This record gives sequence, structure tokens and C-alpha cells, in this order.
Amino acid sequence: MADSPNCDLKSLSPLQLFERVTEQGEKVRALKAGKAPKDEIDAAVRMLLSLKQSYKTATGQDYQAGMPPRDLVLINNGTTKEEDEDFVDPWTVQTSNAKGVDYDKLIVRFGSSKIDTDLINRIERAIGQKPHRFLRRGIFFSHRDMDQILDAYEKKKSFYLYTGRGPSSQAMHVGHLIPFIFTKWLQEVFDVPLVIQLTDDEKYLWKDLTIEKAYEYARENAKDIIACGFDINKTFIFSDLDYLGTSSGFYKNIVKVQKHVTFNQVKGIFGFTDSDCIGKISFPAIQAAPSFSSSFPQIFNGKENIQCLIPCAIDQDPYFRMTRDVAPRIGQPKPALLHSVFFPALQGAQTKMSASDPNSSIFLTDTPKQIKTKINKHAFSGGRDTIEEHRKYGGNCDVDVSFMYLTFFLEDDDRLEQLKQAYTSGELLTGELKKVLIETLQPLIAAHQERRKQVTDEMVKQFMTPRKLAFEF
Amino acid sequence: MADSPNCDLKSLSPLQLFERVTEQGEKVRALKAGKAPKDEIDAAVRMLLSLKQSYKTATGQDYQAGMPPRDLVLINNGTTKEEDEDFVDPWTVQTSNAKGVDYDKLIVRFGSSKIDTDLINRIERAIGQKPHRFLRRGIFFSHRDMDQILDAYEKKKSFYLYTGRGPSSQAMHVGHLIPFIFTKWLQEVFDVPLVIQLTDDEKYLWKDLTIEKAYEYARENAKDIIACGFDINKTFIFSDLDYLGTSSGFYKNIVKVQKHVTFNQVKGIFGFTDSDCIGKISFPAIQAAPSFSSSFPQIFNGKENIQCLIPCAIDQDPYFRMTRDVAPRIGQPKPALLHSVFFPALQGAQTKMSASDPNSSIFLTDTPKQIKTKINKHAFSGGRDTIEEHRKYGGNCDVDVSFMYLTFFLEDDDRLEQLKQAYTSGELLTGELKKVLIETLQPLIAAHQERRKQVTDEMVKQFMTPRKLAFEF
Repeated sequence: MADSPNCDLKSLSPLQLFERVTEQGEKVRALKAGKAPKDEIDAAVRMLLSLKQSYKTATGQDYQAGMPPRDLVLINNGTTKEEDEDFVDPWTVQTSNAKGVDYDKLIVRFGSSKIDTDLINRIERAIGQKPHRFLRRGIFFSHRDMDQILDAYEKKKSFYLYTGRGPSSQAMHVGHLIPFIFTKWLQEVFDVPLVIQLTDDEKYLWKDLTIEKAYEYARENAKDIIACGFDINKTFIFSDLDYLGTSSGFYKNIVKVQKHVTFNQVKGIFGFTDSDCIGKISFPAIQAAPSFSSSFPQIFNGKENIQCLIPCAIDQDPYFRMTRDVAPRIGQPKPALLHSVFFPALQGAQTKMSASDPNSSIFLTDTPKQIKTKINKHAFSGGRDTIEEHRKYGGNCDVDVSFMYLTFFLEDDDRLEQLKQAYTSGELLTGELKKVLIETLQPLIAAHQERRKQVTDEMVKQFMTPRKLAFEF
Repeated sequence: MADSPNCDLKSLSPLQLFERVTEQGEKVRALKAGKAPKDEIDAAVRMLLSLKQSYKTATGQDYQAGMPPRDLVLINNGTTKEEDEDFVDPWTVQTSNAKGVDYDKLIVRFGSSKIDTDLINRIERAIGQKPHRFLRRGIFFSHRDMDQILDAYEKKKSFYLYTGRGPSSQAMHVGHLIPFIFTKWLQEVFDVPLVIQLTDDEKYLWKDLTIEKAYEYARENAKDIIACGFDINKTFIFSDLDYLGTSSGFYKNIVKVQKHVTFNQVKGIFGFTDSDCIGKISFPAIQAAPSFSSSFPQIFNGKENIQCLIPCAIDQDPYFRMTRDVAPRIGQPKPALLHSVFFPALQGAQTKMSASDPNSSIFLTDTPKQIKTKINKHAFSGGRDTIEEHRKYGGNCDVDVSFMYLTFFLEDDDRLEQLKQAYTSGELLTGELKKVLIETLQPLIAAHQERRKQVTDEMVKQFMTPRKLAFEF
């Protein structure tokens, strides 16, 4: 391979080119140190220069040792000022735009595909039902290989769903429900098995938590997830700390991924540094491995070729870009993905709702009164400063957090459109819009709390026991 | 912690200081980027300079970002020329000295302790038996905390033994037996449980092997290990690929270690680079974890405080220096160690015997004829060029590989001393010394082969099944 650098350089990613340059540099140094013949050294140096040129062509920048091309998740938001850049990675979402992150740019930058009307119509035909409001309203807005899933589904070839959660605290907020609400719908309409990963090991590694506490959070969070209504016969929920020690297939896939991903790559994708612990550095393989059906021999009967579909928020995409890169090299199918937007903080769409900032969040444990107070007090309004101005110029739904939340939770399309028009025209006041949101969320959360109360420890144990599901593979 | 940099800087290792400087540098950059108040920035900068000064005092070198102090395993062999340096790490042993590595210097460099006559006498008193020839002859020459093990043992407090092997091929050579022969003796005289790790995951990560092949080698190697005569009721042999998926305690300890070791540290200790795969980078935690009894809940009844003693070749020490550094930070006792010298290659003690170089090795599968031929053809001789010269000046046992091997395998101390004197005086010729070695090794290896034949797949399965051993904890 290294002897024919020009054969396929154009097909290499900037990071792959970076690694080729690094390797070649090491080769040159080794030849010089070993006092190799001059012509051999010269040939190696020529190849090094050629590789560096290819790197520059691909990235527009000179190669710098030890500085891999960061797989940029900085999305320039149309201006050139630094403060106007969107930042998106699995730990941080930040934009200066009150409308939120520019998702069209994110699609271009991440190299995923837009979920367009054609795809939504195709899903509708495949399942014979109206698509979920999250699809109709662009809340799940981006995908990878969803057409392949549908191709196979139309030929009666099954797949499985994989989603997850990092259990960093007992407190889950309404935003955390988005992937689960959607996944539950996917499970129902496609009738497929589902695995849900609780990355308690990740939370232990990243946070100031004991192993025991992280595991406890995983079990508590499992209750909220179960309360979303998943079918116990078709769903396996697992804690990494638990499942890794009970599965013959999971660790094997982890170590396979770990063999095929370098520190340069995770540095480029996740921004890890030399001061990060080796647990963080190798963790991405643990989030990758459930994308392969052989991680669940009890469900798939050891079969390795079952296609996986991952519904998740777009900030998790870096993990699965890495997974898709590795998959063919370990003889596994690439997982397909459906990406959602972020659920905005109460204060505005510049950041996502975060459990670590209680004022930004409506928790699943909040009382009707707390919900009302938080929305009235904190929900960023797109309304005008005075009633007179509002009546005259109307409100701005694009930045109004109450309206955004209604797009997530109000099922009735017509009603939502009426509200939008009334608010934009100035007919509906901010307080009135907030009231609609409060009256939508209060019963939803109360119902969730009711269902959660029904979830017993015994049910948690059942969901989390590795077992056969109600499918034949 | 970071606010009182001078309180305990003197107790920090160069690497810990390096990390403190790096962290503080990042803090200063963050403060500047966040446009923090000037006095806050100034205070942070002063602390950074003070940390850099401490680093310089400790290492004699200026701090350089991204260049942690390498935990030098390069042992200068008394001269200043580069070619005369001993190199020792878990993958390579190399010296220019025909007598082999300078082990006294290694003790100083690694910071371990010499196994001196006092310690050997103390072991003899504790066990009430003559110490093993490997102790009498300095083959196990270095230790960490062996006195603590004896202190506790004298107070009837038990411990357990942990050793291992990287199964890179089916072919084991006689050098591979050294730790197992000694460990078997320790198990017998101290009557303690033993765990043996087969790092098939390591071999998969480092070599061009499939997972299946690595696991197959692990099972094949287990047969040779079992043939050493370990007590099935007191010994648990495990493959990482296997055991990780069946133990509730092993992964938890791995992730604990992984949280407390940075990339800078493994870079310093093992020389990993940014181009290494994340599996290699995180692997040291997997070799560390069996040092903690909670990795084997089935044996130790979940008890976390059972002391561990690790007999191994000195090249494995970097793993356990790391482990001992982490242990107190995760609330576990530090493992104690007994270090052996390397088993020399047939061609001479400049390198250790290596299965990947068949000419350097006597394999456990070799026939009596192959053993004879290899020793006669390849064993480096300390004899003189002609019989006349040899008779006149005598041979040199310090560099004679046949004599070295006899120190490993000939039990009779008096006979060994006679051979040494006869060879040194010139009375005994090289061919005659080789004949003694051949006659010593042939029956040993034949007996091993005979015992190995008795090892059934069922026995391997039993040894490798996680289970209670014949001890109460």
C-alpha cells in the first residue's frame, strides 16, 4: 500500500492522508537512523513530499506533525466572525443564532442527507401510516442510508433499532424523551427489535461519579425509558457496566473497533487531548459496538449481518461516522441513522436543554405548578415588548421557545398552524401561547409520571436481562 | 487542588508535574479566551510559571507542551555511547553486552528492590523449605513489596498469585516456562490461589491475527501451562476475550483503571504514539485489573482487599508500575511483584528467546534430535576458538548460553558449580558442556510433552471456567 501513494490518494479522507504522511515521516526517520542506502532514503523522501502535497490539496493547509485535521464540527453560520460559529459535539451545542443551529449547514458539514419530502412519502408508503410528527415537522431532519433500510424492508428483510442515553443524573427532562418517543414509534410501525444502551461507564469516566452511582442512575433512567411504553418482548435495555460482563459478543466487537481506530482519529473526531484518560479515548468503541448485531448473540442468534438503524440527536453522529468508517473493515454492515435537532433550552435555541442547568429544563418529575412557573418565567418569547407593538407587528415563531416546544409536542397539525398564524399576526399574545404550551405539557408529563409509577424493579430487571426477543433470526 | 500548587509539588512524579503544567496552561488559555479579569489571569500565569519551575527542578529540563517526560526504560550500560544502551520494554529486550542486560542498573532505573540473601533467608524461614533454584541463583532477582507479603503471611493473612502470557502463537519455547515453573512452586509452598491471564485481546490488537485465532492460541497455550502441573482446585486460567464477557467484576476494575491513567502516562510508560490504535492505548488497564481481587468475585467472594503477588519477567514491570500508581487512587492494595531475568536466545544474551525467531528458540514441541541439533548448532559458546587455547585459558561461563540454560534447568547446585569450575579452567570442552545441557533438557521436554498429552479439552474447559476455588475468603 505505502509503496504506491498515488493510486488512491484522492479517495482518502484528510485524516487518512494525515496518517499516511505521519507513517511515511516515521519511515524516513527510521531509514535515516538505520543508515539505509541513499537511493532508498531519497525515494522515501520523495513519497513523503508527494503525500504532503496531497494533504495540502485536500485540506488547504500544510501538514503539521501531531496536529491531525480536526473533523470540524464548527459550522460557520454564514458570517466570518468567530462568535457567530455553531459548535456541535457530543458534549456541547452552542450557537449565537436565536433560531438555533443551522441544520442545513450541519448536513453539509457532516456529510449526511436531508430527510426530504420524497423520503417521508416513501416511509409513509412502506408503513402504510401517517409519518410521525417529528418527521412531518423536520425534527428528525437528517439521515444516513435510510433508503437502504427501506429497500431491504420492502423486500421483507428485517433490521433492528439501537438508541441510547448517558445516565448522568436521576433527573431526565422532556428533551431526553425525543429519541425515545420517536424510537417507540419506529418500533411499532416497523415491528423490529430494539436495543437501548445506557452508557453508565461513559458517565463514570466523564463525571465525578462512582461506578455504583452511575449504575444506579442507569437503572433509574431505565424506568423513565420503560415508561415511554416500549414492548418488553421486543426491547433490551442494557447498562454497559452490567452487559459487558455478561455478553460473549459485545467485548469482541469493542476490541475489533478499537483495533481499527487510532488516537489521531478520535483526536480529530472528538477533540481528545493527551491529558485525557485512556478510558475516554477508547470509549467511542463502546458506543460503536451495539451497531453490530453480533454484540447481541442472545437476540440475533449470533447472526452478524442484521442491519442496524440508529435514531439519535445529531450531536451523537461523530460516534457513528467513526462506526461507519470501521464497519466494512471488520466485515460488518454500516449502521443507518436518523438524526434529530436539539431540544432547545427554555432560555432560547442558542443551547440545548441541559439537566445540569435546572432553569433551562422542564423535568419529567416537575409538578403542574412547576411546569407553569418555569414556562411563564423562563421560556424565551418571540413576542414584542408591549401589547400594542405585539398587536401591530406580531410575534416571531422562529425564536419563540414556547412555539418550538409545541412543534415537538402538539400532535394536531392544523392547530399548530393556526397558532403560528395567530401569533405571527399579533392576534395571539405571548401569555396566551405559553398557556397553550402549559396545557399541552402538563397532562403529557402527568401521564408519564403515572406510567413511571407502574414500572416496578422487577420490570426493570426483565428489560435489562439479556434474553431472546419475540423475533426469529 | 490546582489553587495550592506548592503544597505537595515535591511529592509529585515528573509526569504528574507535567500534567499539572499542561492543565494550568489550558486554564490560562481559557481565562484569556473568556476575557477573565486581569488579576485572575495574572494569578493563573504566576502559578503556571511556578509549576514550570518545579517541573524543571524535578527533571532538569524545560517543560515542552505535548512532550511528557518519557519514563525511561533505556538503561545506560556504564558507557556513554548510544549503541551500548540496554533497551527493555514489554515488546523488546536488547543489549550489546554478551552477558545480557545489566540487571542491577535495571533495579535502580525501575525503582524496584533487589532480592538479597536476607529476603531469600526470610522466605526459607516462612515456608520451611529450601528456596527454589530460581531464587538461589538470582533468576528471580528483583521485587516490589515482597516483605509485605511475608509480613502478612506470617500473620496468617493470605494472598493470591497472578501471572500471565500473551498467546501469540501455538509454539511456546522453554523460556516461556520460567514464570510458570516458579509460580507453580510459589503456589505449592504458600498454598494460595492463582489466576493466569491469557491476553488474547492484546495479541489480536498487536499482531496480524483474527479474534478467533488469538482465542485458539490462548486455549492451546493453556494446555502447555496446565502441563506444568498446576492444581485445578486452586488455579483459574482465563482468556480476556472470554472472561471479560462473563465477569461482573473484571470490566468494572478495567474502567476504574482507565479513568485514572492518561494518554500522557501510557505514552511515557509504553512509548505509544498518536498513530497507535485506541485498543493498544487502553490495553494496559486490562493487564492491570487482575491485580485486584474484585476482578474475581467468584474466587474471592467479592472481597476487594486481598493482596496480590505477581511473578513475571522484568519487562512486564511497566504495566505493574502503572497499576501500583493507580491502586491507592481506586481504593485497592498495590500488587507485590517478583521479577525474573530474561531467558536468553540461543545466539546469546543480547536478546531474549523469541518464538518468532525459530533459530533462537527451543520449543516445547521439539524432538530430542531437534533439541540436540539446535544446541550444537546455535547455542553461543563462551569457549575458546581451538581446543588448545580452551585447555590453556578456559571458557567464559558469563557469556556461554549452554551454561546459562543449565543455571535455569539443572537442579543440583553442586553439579552446576563443578561444571562451572571445569569449564572455566578449560578442563571441560564446549561440546561436553553442550552435551550436559542436551541431556538435561531432553528428558525435561519429553516429560512436559507427556504431561501435555494428558491434558484433555475437558480439563482446559474446567481450568478456564470461572468458579470457586478451594479457599475460603
